[in-house]
Amino acid sequence: MTQPPVLDLATARDLCDAALAAAASRSLLVSVAVVDAGGHLVAFARMDGAEIAGPTLAVDKAFTAVAHSAPTHELAVAAAPGGPLFGLHAAGQGRYVIFGGGIPLRAEPGGVIVGAVGVSGAPDPADDTACAEAAVDAAAARWTRR
Amino acid sequence: MTQPPVLDLATARDLCDAALAAAASRSLLVSVAVVDAGGHLVAFARMDGAEIAGPTLAVDKAFTAVAHSAPTHELAVAAAPGGPLFGLHAAGQGRYVIFGGGIPLRAEPGGVIVGAVGVSGAPDPADDTACAEAAVDAAAARWTRR
Amino acid sequence: MTQPPVLDLATARDLCDAALAAAASRSLLVSVAVVDAGGHLVAFARMDGAEIAGPTLAVDKAFTAVAHSAPTHELAVAAAPGGPLFGLHAAGQGRYVIFGGGIPLRAEPGGVIVGAVGVSGAPDPADDTACAEAAVDAAAARWTRR
Amino acid sequence: MTQPPVLDLATARDLCDAALAAAASRSLLVSVAVVDAGGHLVAFARMDGAEIAGPTLAVDKAFTAVAHSAPTHELAVAAAPGGPLFGLHAAGQGRYVIFGGGIPLRAEPGGVIVGAVGVSGAPDPADDTACAEAAVDAAAARWTRR
Repeated sequence: MTQPPVLDLATARDLCDAALAAAASRSLLVSVAVVDAGGHLVAFARMDGAEIAGPTLAVDKAFTAVAHSAPTHELAVAAAPGGPLFGLHAAGQGRYVIFGGGIPLRAEPGGVIVGAVGVSGAPDPADDTACAEAAVDAAAARWTRR
Repeated sequence: MTQPPVLDLATARDLCDAALAAAASRSLLVSVAVVDAGGHLVAFARMDGAEIAGPTLAVDKAFTAVAHSAPTHELAVAAAPGGPLFGLHAAGQGRYVIFGGGIPLRAEPGGVIVGAVGVSGAPDPADDTACAEAAVDAAAARWTRR
Repeated sequence: MTQPPVLDLATARDLCDAALAAAASRSLLVSVAVVDAGGHLVAFARMDGAEIAGPTLAVDKAFTAVAHSAPTHELAVAAAPGGPLFGLHAAGQGRYVIFGGGIPLRAEPGGVIVGAVGVSGAPDPADDTACAEAAVDAAAARWTRR
Repeated sequence: MTQPPVLDLATARDLCDAALAAAASRSLLVSVAVVDAGGHLVAFARMDGAEIAGPTLAVDKAFTAVAHSAPTHELAVAAAPGGPLFGLHAAGQGRYVIFGGGIPLRAEPGGVIVGAVGVSGAPDPADDTACAEAAVDAAAARWTRR
């Protein structure tokens, strides 16, 4: 059996940089967090001038993406009134974030989760998601090359 | 580059007084909090007879306005089911308030955030917002005079 | 029966000023909090350059002084290993402070508690206590004059 | 008056690297956090194999160093039974760390605090402190060069 790729610090920092570059190219000020498969922080960076909510929300988005094996932007519908996970955002001692910006990192599409990236700071969370996707793409490129 | 104005204690107290005067003129009983750019309290005042929720909500409204670079009354729509930030009020360990009364203080319109004011106690949060706006106006008048 | 004096906002602000003046005369940078008989904040001021721990510790010292009907500097011995209140500082969801700076406000010596003052920021908590005592003296002077 | 140096992301990352290099040279596995003057995270890195306590403790050590304007290793004696700050570690909602690894960053010796570095993971916190000092030295070298 092939070992899943390790989310080491060097990789985590490269993923941060990929998300930061995506933010800069969109003139956004964001925080970026990368967590491991246990949901624990590996690397974090907050751009100059980015909101102080970032250290909380970027980390918690990444944590949520690992905890629920799903991108955070996919959780809102399920967590809304009438949805199967209604109330999810109020569980987990306030650490579950259900808007965009957190995406699991998988060794391969549909594969095991090895961590997650979380981005926070853009006025529209869809832009946080786009920055997080840049980090996910960077991970895919790196891990496919192996 | 011009330095942003400092939100010192003397200023923070004047901003409190401006909000308190606005409340008195409307026969409201409120609490007023002024925080710095890190979201930490600088000055606070609770009017005689104002609710004991004020020390929590006025401070957290000001904190939220700094943390999210936005007036708290603008967050409700985005944080409601179907909105882009649905669930925001349950994140941040319960410190994010998404109804009116918290407004960021900027060195100049569109400029860097140097703190925030939070008002709580009016039966209608729109009135808390109006009192907070009086403090924001007082800051603008002071900082434009420089 | 005589009514106990009310700890109104005007009084609370004067007590803050008394503590701030005592700090300034000692070249200390502190935060000062005044809470009511319910332990809820009435007035707060943080001097320019005072530590960001102040908004937490000054408020919690005042809260503790009301909650335990005692100056916070008297709690350390009882809360130490072997003392009758061993472990007190770990109770109360982390809001009980057992070093100096919090003092109850009484209508008269030995009288009913109408609130408390809390001071934080001095390197030596004995200096925080001295500043808090200045506020207590100001209250006594005001309430005796009635 | 000269403006204090800004603790921007580029600087914060360099300080992380200085602490990481110090850890590597000592064969230690640590986490490193750099926070701003408001105690909010700017940059973080956890070495491969470092404890999962690091994301909590490194960040909270840095926060504590800012909040109390002191290196965390200086707090233990004062916070022990019989010390002037006995019980400090139980205050602040559990975020104050009173063993070594957190050091404030000052613009100049004795100058204003612009942030802090926190290191966690070494079996002996004295080694965490040594790694943090490497970051402080890097900041001093950078800011003196200006």
